[in-house]
Amino acid sequence: MSTRPPAEVGMHLDDVDTPALLLDLDAFERNVAGLAQAVAGIGAGLRLRPHAKSHKCPVIALRQMAQGAVGVCCQKVSEAEAMVYGGVPDVLVSNEIVGTAKIARLVALAKQARVTVCADDAGNVATLSEAAATFGVRLPVLVEVNVGSDRCGVEPGEPPLALARQIAASPGLRFAGLQAYYGAAQHIREYAKRKEAIDAAAEKVRRTLDLLHQHELACEVISGAGTGTYTFEAGSGIWNELQAGSYIFMDADYLKNLKADGTPGGDFEPSLFVYATVMSRPTKDRAILDAGLKALSVDVGFPWVVGMQDVEYIRAADEHGRLTLHDPDRTLPLGQKLRLVPGHCDPTVNLHDWYVCYRNNRVEALWPITARGAVL
Amino acid sequence: MSTRPPAEVGMHLDDVDTPALLLDLDAFERNVAGLAQAVAGIGAGLRLRPHAKSHKCPVIALRQMAQGAVGVCCQKVSEAEAMVYGGVPDVLVSNEIVGTAKIARLVALAKQARVTVCADDAGNVATLSEAAATFGVRLPVLVEVNVGSDRCGVEPGEPPLALARQIAASPGLRFAGLQAYYGAAQHIREYAKRKEAIDAAAEKVRRTLDLLHQHELACEVISGAGTGTYTFEAGSGIWNELQAGSYIFMDADYLKNLKADGTPGGDFEPSLFVYATVMSRPTKDRAILDAGLKALSVDVGFPWVVGMQDVEYIRAADEHGRLTLHDPDRTLPLGQKLRLVPGHCDPTVNLHDWYVCYRNNRVEALWPITARGAVL
Repeated sequence: MSTRPPAEVGMHLDDVDTPALLLDLDAFERNVAGLAQAVAGIGAGLRLRPHAKSHKCPVIALRQMAQGAVGVCCQKVSEAEAMVYGGVPDVLVSNEIVGTAKIARLVALAKQARVTVCADDAGNVATLSEAAATFGVRLPVLVEVNVGSDRCGVEPGEPPLALARQIAASPGLRFAGLQAYYGAAQHIREYAKRKEAIDAAAEKVRRTLDLLHQHELACEVISGAGTGTYTFEAGSGIWNELQAGSYIFMDADYLKNLKADGTPGGDFEPSLFVYATVMSRPTKDRAILDAGLKALSVDVGFPWVVGMQDVEYIRAADEHGRLTLHDPDRTLPLGQKLRLVPGHCDPTVNLHDWYVCYRNNRVEALWPITARGAVL
Repeated sequence: MSTRPPAEVGMHLDDVDTPALLLDLDAFERNVAGLAQAVAGIGAGLRLRPHAKSHKCPVIALRQMAQGAVGVCCQKVSEAEAMVYGGVPDVLVSNEIVGTAKIARLVALAKQARVTVCADDAGNVATLSEAAATFGVRLPVLVEVNVGSDRCGVEPGEPPLALARQIAASPGLRFAGLQAYYGAAQHIREYAKRKEAIDAAAEKVRRTLDLLHQHELACEVISGAGTGTYTFEAGSGIWNELQAGSYIFMDADYLKNLKADGTPGGDFEPSLFVYATVMSRPTKDRAILDAGLKALSVDVGFPWVVGMQDVEYIRAADEHGRLTLHDPDRTLPLGQKLRLVPGHCDPTVNLHDWYVCYRNNRVEALWPITARGAVL
């Protein structure tokens, strides 16, 4: 059940086996510092709680906290366990937790660290309260509000008020605020439309907050935002906790978002790559890589080949990636290793067990992806 | 680096945690026996060597061998290592292996078990031969021929002859035959067109074989075929080894293939499911499952919900699956568990560490997916 690391510390990048998940430490560190500084610059009321579902690695979580993050977000209890036992003292499970076994583990974990959870259902709140009482903890709960993604969460206004009241009245629970994340807005390409989406979400949260305040229910936490929209939430005066996760890595999909001036990109740079080898060169215009669906996720599109705009990744099979060489003069011999910017970083990371961290083309560290496969 | 199993032996299916990868043992055993009997019925010249890239589990490989399979296929050296050290004595790496470290491991493994590899490049053949000589083994090599997939493999005719001659003349190697797998044909929906594709592939192999025989190069093995086309290869008189893998599980994509009479389906039945829980019920027509991109692969389409034709899986996020309920009378309460037939079995299996094997709604065994993540 354990996989060998594809590299050893000290190795030159040329000697790293493939497929491997590479992390460019210089770029990664600039990304981590970049968001930390941006958040610090906005003011004392704004906290950064990056999403650990992207990296699944306590080493990275602790680096983020060393630069001011108050803790991390997780989507699963098993991810939260990996973070807490990896040294992270404060975890928001930014998701609903349903099922007896999972709720027991969640509440038990709240005895080991500061753990907060989300809820969008009265029956679930009752179950959480019972379990918390059994374990003798008081669990902070955020009410999830649907601000546009149409996924989990109750509609703004009266429904969150009702749930907040129920939570506040539950002996095992504490009403801690709102979860208001607009996932679908992260990938709206145009800057103005992305901003418009968050403006609309802000209005929904504001209306809900007004109602909660009328009923003297204090909202300590208004949590949300992602890498594609965090500047809008940060500047809204509504959210006080940012959950961006992908900013540390970036991916081909996020890099397609347009900035205010209409150019593609973002405030961060790609630091995460799938390293692959040319394993077959059957024709002049076709090369086959050893990295397919089991080494990278193609759910939002194929990866980009770093430094070769004339080489296009056009098809992924289970263990193979097919490249088309558009330039007849491009040499790409058998055995050549390439870096790919994955289409979608989160599910790509979840396929690997190790980050091969490098600087100046040397492997500097191997970080275990402790919560790889942590879906329970 | 290890994930907890989502179940315990003896548990009722209702108590299994989610997301989990379920294996219906009755259906699985019928599938394993079904292909074994079909191959045995065709005659003594035909061997079954199922592809282990689908299941990544030595327990399953040994079940297949107990029913007559001569060994398994793998795509990666690390998969082959998992099979050999899990008790499988005969592995065909049905793929090219490129890179010093991998080739050393491949050749070393050939001292532990019967290991065969494929090649499509003269330089690679030379490297294989050197490594084999270093380790004191004689490695059997199949020449991969491109029979239509346009992935790896040399074009039929003279190129395989040249490679076969080189292999036969290499001190560390033995020319063992041809790899002729038509992956792209597996998912051609119409029966007649699927057959036509394999007929065309057979012609390419026949032409190559004639040339090899003219030069007195004996082909012990002609290996190929998948779950979608194996009846054609088996009946061709050309192939003598079948590599089908997905037949043990089936998936939504294979179940879309049409039979000779125009009905969808195949000779096998679905035995593999992703088990998921309804974790949010925000509206009458929307339910959210706890199984998204990190629990199932959507590269060829979304999963099917077992037993509920009016419930459709319409979107996968990293940790969430969105269902649309088309029947207003459908009840689907929070906490209800559903079985999903994954769109594509191979990359879905690769996300999990355990098969939760059940019969009569009771967990009968937990089989480790030993080669999960084995991409090196």
